[in-house]
Amino acid sequence: MKTRAAVAFEPKKPLEIVEVDLQGPKAGEVLVEIMATGICHTDAYTLDGLDSEGIFPSILGHEGAGVVREVGQGVTSVKPGDHVIPLYTPECRQCKACLSGKTNLCTAIRATQGQGLMPDGTSRFSYKGQPIFHYMGCSTFSNFTVLPEIAVARIREDAPFQTSCYIGCGVTTGVGAVVNTAKVSPGDNVVVFGLGGIGLNVIQGAKMAGADRIVGVDINPEKAEWGKRFGMTDFVNPRDVGNVVETLVNMLDGGADYSFDCTGNTEVMRQALECCHRGWGTSIIIGVAEAGKEISTRPFQLVTGRNWRGTAFGGAKGRTDVPKIVDWYMNGKIEIDPMITHVLSLEEINKGFHLMHAGESIRSVVVY
Amino acid sequence: MKTRAAVAFEPKKPLEIVEVDLQGPKAGEVLVEIMATGICHTDAYTLDGLDSEGIFPSILGHEGAGVVREVGQGVTSVKPGDHVIPLYTPECRQCKACLSGKTNLCTAIRATQGQGLMPDGTSRFSYKGQPIFHYMGCSTFSNFTVLPEIAVARIREDAPFQTSCYIGCGVTTGVGAVVNTAKVSPGDNVVVFGLGGIGLNVIQGAKMAGADRIVGVDINPEKAEWGKRFGMTDFVNPRDVGNVVETLVNMLDGGADYSFDCTGNTEVMRQALECCHRGWGTSIIIGVAEAGKEISTRPFQLVTGRNWRGTAFGGAKGRTDVPKIVDWYMNGKIEIDPMITHVLSLEEINKGFHLMHAGESIRSVVVY
Repeated sequence: MKTRAAVAFEPKKPLEIVEVDLQGPKAGEVLVEIMATGICHTDAYTLDGLDSEGIFPSILGHEGAGVVREVGQGVTSVKPGDHVIPLYTPECRQCKACLSGKTNLCTAIRATQGQGLMPDGTSRFSYKGQPIFHYMGCSTFSNFTVLPEIAVARIREDAPFQTSCYIGCGVTTGVGAVVNTAKVSPGDNVVVFGLGGIGLNVIQGAKMAGADRIVGVDINPEKAEWGKRFGMTDFVNPRDVGNVVETLVNMLDGGADYSFDCTGNTEVMRQALECCHRGWGTSIIIGVAEAGKEISTRPFQLVTGRNWRGTAFGGAKGRTDVPKIVDWYMNGKIEIDPMITHVLSLEEINKGFHLMHAGESIRSVVVY
Repeated sequence: MKTRAAVAFEPKKPLEIVEVDLQGPKAGEVLVEIMATGICHTDAYTLDGLDSEGIFPSILGHEGAGVVREVGQGVTSVKPGDHVIPLYTPECRQCKACLSGKTNLCTAIRATQGQGLMPDGTSRFSYKGQPIFHYMGCSTFSNFTVLPEIAVARIREDAPFQTSCYIGCGVTTGVGAVVNTAKVSPGDNVVVFGLGGIGLNVIQGAKMAGADRIVGVDINPEKAEWGKRFGMTDFVNPRDVGNVVETLVNMLDGGADYSFDCTGNTEVMRQALECCHRGWGTSIIIGVAEAGKEISTRPFQLVTGRNWRGTAFGGAKGRTDVPKIVDWYMNGKIEIDPMITHVLSLEEINKGFHLMHAGESIRSVVVY
């Protein structure tokens, strides 16, 4: 079949809207009509050529929502008509990682996904006879895409595509980091570095979990309003204080119970660790650092009881946890609508990248 | 009163055995006759001038066992005749840290202890009218010493001083890191870097906790025998393999569930983290690094589910946990006797430091 898609033919160039060829689903795969997709920093990171593992030409996009239109042989967990969110972190429920109960990092299709291919080692996309690579196993910048069955989460049908697509990455990453990875408890004090699309979701996750103080840290003073909108209790602008770590430690009577880096800046990751409370404070890295950058600290920080951790996709087991987060949204426990600051057509997708780079959007969503 | 003690008059000089003056216990303090004391790397670290916070002249030693001889006003938890182990990490059961239930790092007397003083801001030791500083709140290189009540653990009276003194630091640090900090479970795979006095105790802790594979890593091939003696199942000499991290990850089908650094070398700490299993592996820093040295890694290591932690005094709450570890020793769940390789008189104490530096001892103990 044919489908419209925004193709990244090469790094550092705008996406091109073209009609590509799409093969139907093979065994264990599903064809999904993407109804809406968010534009995320990770797409920009790859498009900008910063991801050393980026492959071109490819169809980017990993934050979508849509409807199953066809299923391949042996598919039993979804059927045509089901509403789904594609999962760049699948959940096979069979591999060592899934069976461990200790991580969401399913390894079932990791190798081929990293190569921009479906599990059988081929691509479903092509353009003028040449293969186009998949991206993060999702490629939601195509109106239709093919996904492994283990990489779609079935969700309730009353959830609007335009907002619930954000649960495919940003919402789950932020809220999940609080709920699944940190397991914040009522009364805990939390610090969030970077109040973009992920940071705001960390804030609302912390609020939902009953945190006492929720301190937002950002060098952009305009983010203070955004933070408060979602439950932030205090704002610190590092440019206004001498030493941000000392400031936070003093504000929180010894430091944060949990801190979250949502910046990708390795210097900020260090501050996030060091503002944690002696004895138990845990810092969680969410942001993706530039290739080659490293985090450092004195080992004394850990020996005196701080914990350094990270999270991917908010520690969420996609098929199990994503439908729950959709419920939380539909039940009003978390908000998404105010974060969708721009709604674009596929033709306007490059504008979404510009808005993100300019810091003017929290989230732009393309509606097909 | 007078007491014999080995005094560190200045850094990098041998200890001098002299008779010092000792004031009796003030309110909340106890006088303890030290019966035996181990000689630990931390004492050497301070004596060698590597500890930027080292204070001289002082009476070193922090790994002792003895008998309470006198108690100050208001002391209720011990009485003359009780057998005790001094605690460089006290347990007041009143401070925010103790009440949190999440850490053993009691803060009740941290400030004065770091200054080489008792909680009232003065020293009980003097020599020729000049004050001599306490060390780590213990100063077990003195035959008699004064300690805060919250810094002694009462232990059973049938435990020999000469071996149970080792529970005052090395045994608890190693076994406790496994039991209290890591909480190793039956079936877990464990890697231990550095098979000295701490590493061997990590090994026997892991064995007691039911670990499956217990891999010891050391550049000294003679340590293999020692490791096996206490439960090590596999030995890796980094000098015999190309890449120690890869070797360990392959040996353990993805890596360690828990790894422990007992070397104090920041490069080894990185290896210890990176040999952990993707998704859940946890690395625990026990070793004390040189002043100014930092640990580093790519944040990807944490984002893909590895955890970086540390431990001090094995996460043990001294008054609560040390008596239990003495029981484990007396009941044969852990061994200490073979680790005490040298028994010395106080006059021979400098020989103990030489044996340690030469790698000839696991533990030298001074018996008064």
